[in-house]
Amino acid sequence: MKLKCKIVDILSAAPMAGMDPRDCEALIVKENDRIRIGGPKGETVASIICSDKFSDAGTLFIPESVARAIGAKEGDELDVVYSQPPESVRAIRRKMDGQKLGAEEITAIVKDISEGSLTNIEVASWLTSLQINGMDLDETADFARAMVDTGDKVVFDKGPIFDFHSMGGVPGNKITPIVVSIAAAAGLIVPKTSSRAISSACGTSDFVETFCDINVTLERLKELGETVGGAFVWGGSMNLAPVDDIVIKIERPLGINPRAKMLASIISKKLAIGANYLLIDIPTGAGTKVHTIEEARAYAQDFMGLGARLGIHVECAITYADQPVGSAIGPILEARECIRILEGETQPTSVVEKACECAGILLEMAGFENGREKAHELLRSGKAHKKFLEIVTAQGGRPDLKSTDLVPGKYTADVISSRSGYVNSIRNRDLVAVAKACGASMDKGAGLLLCKTKGQRVEEGEVLFTLYAESETKLKHAQELAERYCPVQIEGMLLKRVTAQESD
Amino acid sequence: MKLKCKIVDILSAAPMAGMDPRDCEALIVKENDRIRIGGPKGETVASIICSDKFSDAGTLFIPESVARAIGAKEGDELDVVYSQPPESVRAIRRKMDGQKLGAEEITAIVKDISEGSLTNIEVASWLTSLQINGMDLDETADFARAMVDTGDKVVFDKGPIFDFHSMGGVPGNKITPIVVSIAAAAGLIVPKTSSRAISSACGTSDFVETFCDINVTLERLKELGETVGGAFVWGGSMNLAPVDDIVIKIERPLGINPRAKMLASIISKKLAIGANYLLIDIPTGAGTKVHTIEEARAYAQDFMGLGARLGIHVECAITYADQPVGSAIGPILEARECIRILEGETQPTSVVEKACECAGILLEMAGFENGREKAHELLRSGKAHKKFLEIVTAQGGRPDLKSTDLVPGKYTADVISSRSGYVNSIRNRDLVAVAKACGASMDKGAGLLLCKTKGQRVEEGEVLFTLYAESETKLKHAQELAERYCPVQIEGMLLKRVTAQESD
Repeated sequence: MKLKCKIVDILSAAPMAGMDPRDCEALIVKENDRIRIGGPKGETVASIICSDKFSDAGTLFIPESVARAIGAKEGDELDVVYSQPPESVRAIRRKMDGQKLGAEEITAIVKDISEGSLTNIEVASWLTSLQINGMDLDETADFARAMVDTGDKVVFDKGPIFDFHSMGGVPGNKITPIVVSIAAAAGLIVPKTSSRAISSACGTSDFVETFCDINVTLERLKELGETVGGAFVWGGSMNLAPVDDIVIKIERPLGINPRAKMLASIISKKLAIGANYLLIDIPTGAGTKVHTIEEARAYAQDFMGLGARLGIHVECAITYADQPVGSAIGPILEARECIRILEGETQPTSVVEKACECAGILLEMAGFENGREKAHELLRSGKAHKKFLEIVTAQGGRPDLKSTDLVPGKYTADVISSRSGYVNSIRNRDLVAVAKACGASMDKGAGLLLCKTKGQRVEEGEVLFTLYAESETKLKHAQELAERYCPVQIEGMLLKRVTAQESD
Repeated sequence: MKLKCKIVDILSAAPMAGMDPRDCEALIVKENDRIRIGGPKGETVASIICSDKFSDAGTLFIPESVARAIGAKEGDELDVVYSQPPESVRAIRRKMDGQKLGAEEITAIVKDISEGSLTNIEVASWLTSLQINGMDLDETADFARAMVDTGDKVVFDKGPIFDFHSMGGVPGNKITPIVVSIAAAAGLIVPKTSSRAISSACGTSDFVETFCDINVTLERLKELGETVGGAFVWGGSMNLAPVDDIVIKIERPLGINPRAKMLASIISKKLAIGANYLLIDIPTGAGTKVHTIEEARAYAQDFMGLGARLGIHVECAITYADQPVGSAIGPILEARECIRILEGETQPTSVVEKACECAGILLEMAGFENGREKAHELLRSGKAHKKFLEIVTAQGGRPDLKSTDLVPGKYTADVISSRSGYVNSIRNRDLVAVAKACGASMDKGAGLLLCKTKGQRVEEGEVLFTLYAESETKLKHAQELAERYCPVQIEGMLLKRVTAQESD
């Protein structure tokens, strides 16, 4: 069928084309079918919107991007034919039917998602099928490999490459720069890529960027690893398994995160930087992603099974996550707490312990004995701090960086206990909501500082936690939330907001 | 957040809004999240496209339809806030988890789909969940009720109302006007609504419209039922459970038709016209939708169970569908074969028998004894024909309509057997593909006439079937397909195309 090109603005990332219902009928195509459009300089495929809005028989409405792909301009005659859905749609249906998919099928799906050849409808169906029917480890390994192939890879000239990853879900987990610094101080290569907050109040990249640059190219990451030995950069600044970004846009509105996708996504980013040894931190506890030790063990088994299939030596650490790691939540607050520990501070012990445990496992993977003790020694001796400053400098930060350089938001308020008792629970999720209400992670100075941990004695009038914000409005909103949520529970009592003052 | 309105064309039926990535970050929203947009005359909800294409911080790009809904014009300041997904998304996730949904949840999902409050992503996930996890009969009955509520209903002043429905999948099934005419001739009220071809070569409405009007209002359908007693109109011309049309647009590209959706969709249209007695024809055989008697029985159980829950007396007929019903496939060819039988022709017996069996069951539901014989008698006596012409006239057709008025396409070609033997299979799907290649159902004169049925003896050189088309190109294409597919199999031999001539 010949149709005349009309270029329109388009509110869609996917390639689409608008057609008059009469033309659709004549071509025997319906909404969401695909057509192949031929123009002066090539062909492309788009899915159809058949709407009365395009009631102009003989005209094909296409966005600029589609016009560019085929070298067409307004008024050109375009050749339009029906186009079969990609083969990968059949594979999606097979997963719907509960079948095990082969490597070719999985590769085709991932490639088609990456190239925009599958519509949102098809990707949503794929993710729903994964959520319900899952994948075994063979499929998940194929999935991870296919994801890597949608992006760039780095091949280090030195090795082996060490990496670690936290499954997340526990607030205040600021151990990454400490672990990397300790391990690199011992001579390991740890080119760590991190992420920003997705649903949390602060991702590693969100607080690291308060004291150095986190955007690097893959080439620069290689350099950092091979010269300084360590890095803590933002994975999003490189093109690592980028298909994940497309998939996340479909998962989010559905509120799902299929296990197989999650596993493949994590492991694909490690494959892309050529990790040989990988430690996975699995925070476990009531208020986090993994609720029980049994669940955590199942994840550990899966990660190790995937590692075996993909040539990565994987170990896992099941860590305590019933309350935040350390006291600080929010970018600058976390950065300050993290750097203080590297400077020699021994509190909060939960941060020091977790960092040294994790670094210790990496060290033992590298052949050291008594890894944990060795990690403590590297921290105590200041060697880790020296390495930290080297990395910071290499990432464009100040060579004389001090924790005191980092100043949180000037609007603060204490949340005070209205009675005496023992802290019997700290609800991570509510605490995160309060920190986000303060403005984290967008407002770098926003967040909160916990003054109490689980099991501690609290007297009436004592401060439970302090809020920090960069605006009075947000502080107020966060105070209200804190009052409503009572994230620190003292034998079931309600919290009461008491003071709000502008510090400084 | 305040953003300035910019109106753009939009290639999407769903309400969407384009935002600059920086604005998205500031509002803490991401692609496919929802925002509530406030304008001079009201509020509406749209989902976000966050793209570099809209790199104009401070501006909200909306289509005309959204602008109209809030009374906004270009340059107006709009108020934009995050908007939670509808509650029904939670219900979709519960179905993903394999839970049984309550009536309220199902109603909310159907209402939100109907009102456009769920995105394609969410509807695709819902249908995939249904495809995998299914629904029990309680849920399916709620689903049907909810679908009815998205459209119009008719309440007849007379009764009871009889209806029947074929699950389809067998080509040449032109019995509807015969069944309706016989039943109405006996005094029953049968206000039958039919559909057009979806994947087949010819739906009932496609061939009925070659001799009378099929577009009527619901009021007119009521009149037809109450005065003439019968009708054979196009369901699509009324607003019966219209949510189905939205759902089909998402099912099609996925190539799925979840059983619960299919059952609810059928039964909802019968509920909407207030059917009291319903006969379901379940064509069963290798080349159709339902392959075995066991499957057919399971469908029958479900339909009867649904009927019991919804106050409809349902009976089912499991019918033979290993080959087409009768000889003709294609609008005019089927119309001619159908009318010939009403005029007294006794061939093809498969059409006569099936029509009288189905009409007989309806008659027995109405209290007649020996329904099948009674049906034959009404057909033989010409009473059914008289009633048929009454209905045709009431639907705007000619009172003196004759089968000879109907003339198929003038381009014809015989497909001839290249050897002698017995017909051991007729493949419905391939035959349909050939009839569609001829131009059916769009070209009214296109289709084919089968000369042989299963088990018949064929001599070398005998005609197996004749193709009819309205254009030589389509005829040629159909001939090629016929040769490639060999839909009539004679002891495994290949067919060979022999002649092609312009008749007339």
